[in-house]
Amino acid sequence: MKKMGIPNMTEKNREQFQSDGRLIETKLSQYFATRPRWGMLHEAMEYSLLAGGKRIRPALTLAFCRLFGGSVDTALPMACAVEMIHTYSLIHDDLPCMDDDDYRRGKLTCHKVYGEAMAVLAGDGLLTAAFEVLLDPALTEMTREQAGEAAFVLAKAAGHNGMVGGQTLDIMELETTEQGILELHQKKTGALLRAAAEMGCIAANAGEAARRAAISYAEHLGLAFQIQDDLLDAEGDPQLMGKQTGSDQAAGKQTFLSILGSEACRSRVQKETELAKQSLAVWEGREYLCALADWLENRAY
Amino acid sequence: MKKMGIPNMTEKNREQFQSDGRLIETKLSQYFATRPRWGMLHEAMEYSLLAGGKRIRPALTLAFCRLFGGSVDTALPMACAVEMIHTYSLIHDDLPCMDDDDYRRGKLTCHKVYGEAMAVLAGDGLLTAAFEVLLDPALTEMTREQAGEAAFVLAKAAGHNGMVGGQTLDIMELETTEQGILELHQKKTGALLRAAAEMGCIAANAGEAARRAAISYAEHLGLAFQIQDDLLDAEGDPQLMGKQTGSDQAAGKQTFLSILGSEACRSRVQKETELAKQSLAVWEGREYLCALADWLENRAY
Repeated sequence: MKKMGIPNMTEKNREQFQSDGRLIETKLSQYFATRPRWGMLHEAMEYSLLAGGKRIRPALTLAFCRLFGGSVDTALPMACAVEMIHTYSLIHDDLPCMDDDDYRRGKLTCHKVYGEAMAVLAGDGLLTAAFEVLLDPALTEMTREQAGEAAFVLAKAAGHNGMVGGQTLDIMELETTEQGILELHQKKTGALLRAAAEMGCIAANAGEAARRAAISYAEHLGLAFQIQDDLLDAEGDPQLMGKQTGSDQAAGKQTFLSILGSEACRSRVQKETELAKQSLAVWEGREYLCALADWLENRAY
Repeated sequence: MKKMGIPNMTEKNREQFQSDGRLIETKLSQYFATRPRWGMLHEAMEYSLLAGGKRIRPALTLAFCRLFGGSVDTALPMACAVEMIHTYSLIHDDLPCMDDDDYRRGKLTCHKVYGEAMAVLAGDGLLTAAFEVLLDPALTEMTREQAGEAAFVLAKAAGHNGMVGGQTLDIMELETTEQGILELHQKKTGALLRAAAEMGCIAANAGEAARRAAISYAEHLGLAFQIQDDLLDAEGDPQLMGKQTGSDQAAGKQTFLSILGSEACRSRVQKETELAKQSLAVWEGREYLCALADWLENRAY
């Protein structure tokens, strides 16, 4: 499934994306490898963490660190931390009291395999582990300064005025305007993508201009990503997506698609992708991040 | 209810405990005071956070900071962070898929008031906010070094090999021996009490010996606290406790009480309280922390 998804990248960029993915998965698989007596928790955490996501967020962290001259070893714990936060949010979003989803990435969701209580705990465990991994001096080459700043950026993006706030807006179903849906997704998806990019800058000790460019890229990319998600939910191939499609419409949910229509959505995805790439226009070495944006624009899952 | 609970403290110590409690509650009530459009989340977080706990953990943070010569202003965000972690764990433990509790501290539990989805999110929001509050340079007088170290201590205590691990052991109901129950509670309750004490030391830049004393105090106190909890669940006054009693026995749960019997439990509470106090024997100014331990030994809720 994975290899099919990146046809429009050059060989070199595809290799970079795949080798970053392997690096991240190898690292992720090390954190919870031991199995204490309460190891069912670790098993549930690992089940969702290693269930084969696209690893977009950690890829952004590594890519921005590299773009601005940092060492990938410094960025790797940050990359793993952001993926843990992302995974916890999926586990909790899938719970029966939330979206009640049975499948994710072609596999049963965490609560379908381990039960609801364990899924709540696996989410809690991953959310907390993100900060452990970031802040443990034994696990990182970051300075305390870098680790503290990265952890703050991550907590703010994930928290009550970031991702958790966005999920709240989502379940409250308050939003019926383009502006409202935009704010929902800036919080629910955008904030974490932005934090992923920012952490890459922190790992590289990048300056203000570099950081602004990374944030702008991530914000446009996040918006393109979300609108593409709405389109795929309506028009995508459930087999490629690894989950049921049509759920937004079935739930009568307001989305970019229901408000703007599919034509406007498609051209908006293009426009935001273009703006993402333009954000990096003055930075040498941007080709990989531009290719990543192009791939996401054309992804089928 | 609160004032009844501390009859055996001297006037001076009682005043200290009560003024620390007010300080913490005032600070806690400031963090989520704004109400954005998704402010139902903030309301749910605040509902549980300000539902009148004993504030033992933050009191320990402030007390150890003071004992070792630090400034309470430095310790206050740490104290609030540990209380947020404690509160999130109560919200998630009370969920229908966990302990399914309707009342806590004499009030309806978070999910009974705001629904299950919002309670999951309120817990997630508080867990994340603990790290925001600790790590936000604008909210704290800590150095980045202190904040990073405190956040790491807190994450480790709260995480998969700490509190979340303990809750996993609890729902798996694996433990049938004194040793097993001990480990469960060292994780589920002990780890966070210990982190509260350690953070006070970090706030005061206390040395190794001071830190060892604080940890020893917290570990003995935590054990006394938990055994007393088991006794109160069986023999306490539901009205004073603000929740149903007898739930352990009704659930056929193995506890210190079911394994050791009430006589042995009572003398163990005494012994652990004594050991907690002895841990501080060489430290001038320990009277308040000793009084706190005595109060907890004799508490009725």
